[in-house]
Amino acid sequence: MTYGLITKFLARPGERDALTDCLLLAAERMPRASGCVHYLISTSDEPEAVWVSEVWVDQAAHDASLKSEDVMALIGRARPLIASVAEQIPLAVLGGKGLPT
Amino acid sequence: MTYGLITKFLARPGERDALTDCLLLAAERMPRASGCVHYLISTSDEPEAVWVSEVWVDQAAHDASLKSEDVMALIGRARPLIASVAEQIPLAVLGGKGLPT
Repeated sequence: MTYGLITKFLARPGERDALTDCLLLAAERMPRASGCVHYLISTSDEPEAVWVSEVWVDQAAHDASLKSEDVMALIGRARPLIASVAEQIPLAVLGGKGLPT
Repeated sequence: MTYGLITKFLARPGERDALTDCLLLAAERMPRASGCVHYLISTSDEPEAVWVSEVWVDQAAHDASLKSEDVMALIGRARPLIASVAEQIPLAVLGGKGLPT
């Protein structure tokens, strides 16, 4: 089953842009991690909120990416910029427009 | 700015699968609506929850789609299956993996 994950981070005050830059860099590195379909970085009206919308071919691919040196290094850089993980919703992606055919 | 929208519907009891079928059909019709980049249908652990993750080239394209006959007809079919819109988060999509290059 295609695996989705919506994460809402709250950046430390004044660190939202540094966090989005860091996560956009992580998105660039994703192609080397096999199985990553979407890794989108967004903001919302809430000042410190940063949203990451992920889609992976399956949960195993997602979990394996967290063990890759690249991603672990990026997470290490992002962690000091994060005040909290406000929401994290694992999803079973049934289908729709925007998935590789 | 690329526009994103995360919507969490709660289906009426027993209607989740009918709702996901309806929304998957809406996703199929999206290509005719210009500007739709992603329209993904997902479920989560919460029994009646149905999540729609949308990305549009901009908010105008999204808003225009809601006026198209196709989409209005599909929304009309889905509405009786929906108990509530539990969450709806408009997003400014900054970038990442999975957007058309």
